Amino acid sequence: MDRKRIVILGSTGSVGRQTLDVVRAFPGAFEVVGLCAGNNLDLLKRQVDEFRPRYINSAAELNGHNGAQKLAAEEIASLPEVEMVVCATVGCAGMGPVLAAIDAGKTLALANKEVIVMAGEVLMRRAKDSGATLLPVDSEPSALWQCIEGEQTPPAKFIITASGGAFRGRTWESLHNVTPEEALKHPTWTMGAKITIDSATLMNKAFEVIETRWLFDIPYEQIDVVIHRQSIIHSMVEFADGSVKAQLGPPDMRHPIQYALFYPERQQNADLPKFDPVKTGSLTFESMDTSLYPCFDLALNYAKRGGTWPAALAGADEAAVSLFLDGRIRFTDIPEVVASTLAAHTPIMEHSVEDAIQAAAWATERTYASHSAGAPI
Amino acid sequence: MDRKRIVILGSTGSVGRQTLDVVRAFPGAFEVVGLCAGNNLDLLKRQVDEFRPRYINSAAELNGHNGAQKLAAEEIASLPEVEMVVCATVGCAGMGPVLAAIDAGKTLALANKEVIVMAGEVLMRRAKDSGATLLPVDSEPSALWQCIEGEQTPPAKFIITASGGAFRGRTWESLHNVTPEEALKHPTWTMGAKITIDSATLMNKAFEVIETRWLFDIPYEQIDVVIHRQSIIHSMVEFADGSVKAQLGPPDMRHPIQYALFYPERQQNADLPKFDPVKTGSLTFESMDTSLYPCFDLALNYAKRGGTWPAALAGADEAAVSLFLDGRIRFTDIPEVVASTLAAHTPIMEHSVEDAIQAAAWATERTYASHSAGAPI
Repeated sequence: MDRKRIVILGSTGSVGRQTLDVVRAFPGAFEVVGLCAGNNLDLLKRQVDEFRPRYINSAAELNGHNGAQKLAAEEIASLPEVEMVVCATVGCAGMGPVLAAIDAGKTLALANKEVIVMAGEVLMRRAKDSGATLLPVDSEPSALWQCIEGEQTPPAKFIITASGGAFRGRTWESLHNVTPEEALKHPTWTMGAKITIDSATLMNKAFEVIETRWLFDIPYEQIDVVIHRQSIIHSMVEFADGSVKAQLGPPDMRHPIQYALFYPERQQNADLPKFDPVKTGSLTFESMDTSLYPCFDLALNYAKRGGTWPAALAGADEAAVSLFLDGRIRFTDIPEVVASTLAAHTPIMEHSVEDAIQAAAWATERTYASHSAGAPI
Repeated sequence: MDRKRIVILGSTGSVGRQTLDVVRAFPGAFEVVGLCAGNNLDLLKRQVDEFRPRYINSAAELNGHNGAQKLAAEEIASLPEVEMVVCATVGCAGMGPVLAAIDAGKTLALANKEVIVMAGEVLMRRAKDSGATLLPVDSEPSALWQCIEGEQTPPAKFIITASGGAFRGRTWESLHNVTPEEALKHPTWTMGAKITIDSATLMNKAFEVIETRWLFDIPYEQIDVVIHRQSIIHSMVEFADGSVKAQLGPPDMRHPIQYALFYPERQQNADLPKFDPVKTGSLTFESMDTSLYPCFDLALNYAKRGGTWPAALAGADEAAVSLFLDGRIRFTDIPEVVASTLAAHTPIMEHSVEDAIQAAAWATERTYASHSAGAPI
C-alpha cells in the first residue's frame, strides 16, 4: 500500500512519542514528512535519525540535521504532500499550525484539546469551509467517535467517563498542601504534566466536555460525565432507543492514536495491551460531585458563554497550572486564580480565531503577572 | 412514512407479546399483516382485535375472527406484501415458516435460536441465494451486531456475556433436587420456560455461541463467553487493534426487538428502561467454569462436528427440558439424557434443512421415548 504521509506536531511530547511508537510498529505504512517539537533537541535529533523527515521545526536551533530542513510549523502542517497532521502539542501555542492544517483542508488527528476549547466553534466552521476533517485522539472523544461509527440516527446522550484524577475520593479542602509531585501521580493514565494537573482539578474533564461539544456538534445538555475509576470504559453513547454503546480498553494512548492514524480501518498491533474482562473483574460508576472540584463548573460556566470566554479560560488555566508546578500558588488556588483572570476579561462575542489567540495570550500573561511576584510559597 | 408490513410468528409467546408492545408504541409505523400462534387462543383473539391482521395461523381452530383469514404459517411468512417476518417461536417446530421466509427473500428478525442451531450453515447459504437478510433479536447477538455496525475491518473476537442463569454460583452436584419452579426463576431476564431452563443449564449460552458462529460467519475459536451477573453488558466485540466495543442496557427484550424492527434507524421509546451507570454501580466479570455446567461443552462439542449433529442436539434438548418440566427427569439428568440420545444418532454430514428437521424430530422422539415410561420422579 502507499505510505500515508504524516506530520507530527509536538513529536517529543507524550502523545508525539506514542504516535511514533505506532508508526514504528507498522513499517511501510507511514512516511513521516515532518516533525515539529519544542526544546527537547536530543530526542528530536534521534527521531530525525530514525524517521528521516524532510522537514523539521524546533524551538531550539536545528537545521539540516540528517538532511531535515527547517521550516515554520505552519508551513509543515500545510505542505501539499501531507495527508494527515497529528497535533500532539499541549496548550494554546499549538493553535497556529492547527489552523494552517485546517485551512489547507488536511485530515487533522487532534490530541491538543486546548485549541478546541479556545476556538472550537470557529475551527469547526473553518474546517467545514476548507474540507478539513478533525479526528479526535483524546481517549474519551475517540471512544465516542468509535461508538457512533455507522449509526444513522444522531446520538441522544454522550456519557464521558472520568477517572477522577490523582485526588479522587478526597475533599477539595484536604488538598491545600498537596505538592506538584503528588498531583502528577495520575492513577490510571501516563500523560504529560499539564494534562495530569488538569485531570487532578477536573479542569481536563471540563475541557473534554467542551471538545466533545464542538467535535461532534452536540449540545452541552446532551453530555454527561460519570466517575469510572478503572479508566477501562473510555466513554459511552446512549442512542434514541435507549441502547448504549461503550468503547473499552486498557488505558493506553496508543489505542486512540492508532485508531485515528488508520481510520476507517483497524490494524492488528501486538504491542498494545488487550482488555481482559475477567482480569479487570469489575467496572464501577459513581456520580461526579462537581461541587467538590470547583474547576469543572467554573470552566463550563464560562465556556457556555461563548465568544472569547473559553479562550481566556484556556489561557488562564495554562498559566495557573504553570504557577502551581513552579511552586508559586497552591493546588487549591488554581480555580480562584483562573476565576480572577476571567473576571477581568473583556470578551469579544463575534470572534475570529485571532481574537481567541489574543484572549488566551492576554489571560496567560495576566495570570502570570498577578502571581509571579514575590517568593515561591 | 409508509408502514412497515410485518408478520409475527409466535405472537402469543414472550418475545411475540413484547414485539407487539413495540408495535403498539409506534402507531402508524407498522402494519401487522399476519399473526401465527400456538394454543393460546384467547390472547390471539385479543391480538387480532387490536392489530387487525389479514391472516392468522393457530394450532387451535380459529378462522375468520374479526376478518382474519387462516393460512398456513409458511404461506403467511412468504406473502409478497410482507417486508419483515419476526420469528418469535421457540424450538425446532419453528423451522418451516423460517425456511419459507428465507426462501422468499424476506428480512427475518430471528429470536428462535433453535432453528439456527439446527441448520445454521444451510440456512445462511439459502439466505444468501434468495437475498434474505437475517437480523438477530436475541439480546447477545443483537449486541454483537450493534457493536460491529459501521466497522470496516472484521472483528477479532466476540465476547458473549452470560448471567450464569438461575443457579450461578452453585455447583452442579448441589442441583440434584432443584424443582422446575426454582429453575424457572431467572435472575435478570423475564423469558419463556424453555429458554429459562436452557439458561440454567447453560445450554442456552452454547446455543448462542452456535447462533453467533452462523449469523456472523465467525469461527468458534473467535467466540468467548464470560460470566456477567448483571446482564447489563449484552455482549462485546474486540477488534483487530485491541479496541473493544460493548452494547449495554437494562435487561429488557424490547430493546433488541425494537432495534431489529427499525434497523438501521433508531427510534425513541419512552416505555423502555434506560441504563443509568451510577444506579447500576458496578459491572462484574468472571470466567465461566464450563466443567461445572456440563451442557455447555457437550453442546459445543457436538455442534462443531457439523452435519445433522446440532439438529439432533436441539431436538434432544427440547425433549429433555420438557421431561424436566413435567417432573420425569431431574435437572441434573438433562445433560446425560441429551448425551444418550446423541450417542445413538446416525448423522448425515452433507445435509439439507429437511435432514436437519428429521434429525431434530428423531432426537426429540427418542428422548421422550427413553424417559416417559413409568411414574414421574
